Amino acid sequence: MKTQIEEAREGTITPQMASVAAAERIEADDLRQSIADGEAVIMTRGMSSLGIGRGLRTKVNVNLGTSTAIIRPEDEVRKARIAESVGADTITDLSAGGDIPAIRRAIFSATTLPITTVPIYQTAAEIGIDRMTADGILATIQRQAEEGISSVVIHAVEPETIDAALDGKRVMGIVSKGGSITAAYMLTREAENPFLEHFDEILSILKEHDIVLSLGNTMRSGCIHDEMDEAQKREMRMNSQLAACAMENGVQTIIEGLGGHVRADRIPRYIQRYREASPAPLFVAGPLPTDIAVGYDHIAGCVGASIASGAGADYLCYLTPAEHLGLPTPEQVREGLIAFRIAAHIGDTIKYGLDDADLTLARSRSRLDREGQIAHAIDPETAQDLIPPSGPCTMCGDFCAVAMMERLKKENR
Amino acid sequence: MKTQIEEAREGTITPQMASVAAAERIEADDLRQSIADGEAVIMTRGMSSLGIGRGLRTKVNVNLGTSTAIIRPEDEVRKARIAESVGADTITDLSAGGDIPAIRRAIFSATTLPITTVPIYQTAAEIGIDRMTADGILATIQRQAEEGISSVVIHAVEPETIDAALDGKRVMGIVSKGGSITAAYMLTREAENPFLEHFDEILSILKEHDIVLSLGNTMRSGCIHDEMDEAQKREMRMNSQLAACAMENGVQTIIEGLGGHVRADRIPRYIQRYREASPAPLFVAGPLPTDIAVGYDHIAGCVGASIASGAGADYLCYLTPAEHLGLPTPEQVREGLIAFRIAAHIGDTIKYGLDDADLTLARSRSRLDREGQIAHAIDPETAQDLIPPSGPCTMCGDFCAVAMMERLKKENR
Repeated sequence: MKTQIEEAREGTITPQMASVAAAERIEADDLRQSIADGEAVIMTRGMSSLGIGRGLRTKVNVNLGTSTAIIRPEDEVRKARIAESVGADTITDLSAGGDIPAIRRAIFSATTLPITTVPIYQTAAEIGIDRMTADGILATIQRQAEEGISSVVIHAVEPETIDAALDGKRVMGIVSKGGSITAAYMLTREAENPFLEHFDEILSILKEHDIVLSLGNTMRSGCIHDEMDEAQKREMRMNSQLAACAMENGVQTIIEGLGGHVRADRIPRYIQRYREASPAPLFVAGPLPTDIAVGYDHIAGCVGASIASGAGADYLCYLTPAEHLGLPTPEQVREGLIAFRIAAHIGDTIKYGLDDADLTLARSRSRLDREGQIAHAIDPETAQDLIPPSGPCTMCGDFCAVAMMERLKKENR
Repeated sequence: MKTQIEEAREGTITPQMASVAAAERIEADDLRQSIADGEAVIMTRGMSSLGIGRGLRTKVNVNLGTSTAIIRPEDEVRKARIAESVGADTITDLSAGGDIPAIRRAIFSATTLPITTVPIYQTAAEIGIDRMTADGILATIQRQAEEGISSVVIHAVEPETIDAALDGKRVMGIVSKGGSITAAYMLTREAENPFLEHFDEILSILKEHDIVLSLGNTMRSGCIHDEMDEAQKREMRMNSQLAACAMENGVQTIIEGLGGHVRADRIPRYIQRYREASPAPLFVAGPLPTDIAVGYDHIAGCVGASIASGAGADYLCYLTPAEHLGLPTPEQVREGLIAFRIAAHIGDTIKYGLDDADLTLARSRSRLDREGQIAHAIDPETAQDLIPPSGPCTMCGDFCAVAMMERLKKENR
């Protein structure tokens, strides 16, 4: 079986490409070319396909999964259902506690969305950092691939990059969980990076299943005072090289970058650097333009993600109000997802200009059409809950500007 | 008594200027010069003073007050208390229902913050649009001035500007409540604009009490498809002229502009136009970069307000989750205020660079210092509620990156 990027390079428009192009309302051959060039990827799951990348609507990922501290599989299943019903594009299962294969099966059953996994989490959780091996990590990737995942995250970080992040200049050091597990494994065992060591084998597993490779952002900054430093630049260069190599080998690839905490005014220029370094779709987590929004990181992250997607990021990893504090509840997953869908939409108005969604809502509003305002809202359920069941909006009451202007227009006819 | 702008022009650093300069950590004479130039204003209430404008921290206003549909004075008092305790800089009392003078007295008693009023609301509510007169509006301004307000909003809009907004090109027409009351009054009575007609008398009332004049944004756009059109440009020019005239007459002045709905990529350039048109501090409501975030306008507004304040807006009017839907509850006031305090802070990092607030929080985070993270959070109460009472953050559990890197550093010593 050929992968989407191989088919695209041969000039074939696959059914998956046709389906994505229709959903995105673009020409199928333009999409094929973007895929051939590595600027877009298609994540498939069963019969359904999702496009991510240049020229496509900005996508939103929901992280979920157990931790070692909270293992409630039924909550994770609820989160998966919420993610799909509230409009997530993808799910990443970060489960690191409990019976992970069983939890993953339950999540697969609960949703039709493409699912991404992080092999270093599952390996560390099942075997322990002290006992895990490069072969063990590879075995996890093989098992996850067979589960039907659509994408996999690796942490391909060199020792020199880890040293650069731990040289004491950063306030926050390494804040990526996968990155720190990988660093702990490498430093305590004096081992090579397992993903670099076995990169060829990883590529052949991914190629076999046409799984999208996601090159992790292990060096992201943990606070806005931590700059785009040597560690981040090294990782960006390495991931760009790995992306080129993966694409060359027929593996669709995404680069994770500029996640974490980045001051707002720097976001566009850093996005630009990633864009120049590689054609691969850019996946950002946040970024957060402030560190002090404890309990409101979904809101601060919405600001950063709006700016980032407007500047060219293709794919957003949501944050919830529980970021930095704890495993999110299903309700917090919902809140975080809506905030990032707002960011993706704002980003798209910057990248692509206005679309009909806002205009349709505005027309409903101009007609004081309650049902239209609910139906066209980003989250109809919440709109339904908040719109007064009858009578005018209670904010303006008798002095509703829209109603007054409507009356005036009629009187002046 | 001389006003702050008069004193500033004569070279006097008043106690109010000294107090604001100390709070803002700037040189008092720099502030004096900004006030003399009309680039900054000081709102005073009793012994306390608040600076708004160029070179000063971005400020946040909370709107509250009864409507004709919901009259619960005790809720408005609660909102005022919440506004002050959660860090609002000013309050605008929009009360338009019930015994407005009594409600205003209760709000004054509940808070020490500077209070702004909107005379056209109170006049319309007490007298009715059909029966109100220019003299009646003037009498309301006089009464409000005597209540001890710090700032007053007027809607100085010419008939031609109203015509331009109602020419059918806009999807949403006029969406400012004060603007539409004023337009209704002018159109149905074939009357002059009452604020322009009596501008000199208004200035002398404000000058006597050193009340800040706020030139209302009656022509703001009600959806992102409604552009910076002729009506908005006319209003911007008129407000710039009125600001110059008011300053010339010793009245401190703020211009409201770019409120409403504005596509994200256009916000910086429009802010720039306002900046070029007048030195007066710029007060923006929102702006909202999308129309579809029904129930989440505080989040969408946080994005617009972050960009706007980063581009030079000095003063933000918050939005709550209830925007477009109903009078906000006290809890929604809280949510909206926090979102806009986040926006003001992000805007300040863009305008002025990094400050210590983020660094202090990041250092607490890097030490896994729970108390520090609560104390330095933008909303310690919410941080306290969300941070697990003991044990590690439940998101990462045993795989906490910060803790792992800390262990590694110790082992490597």
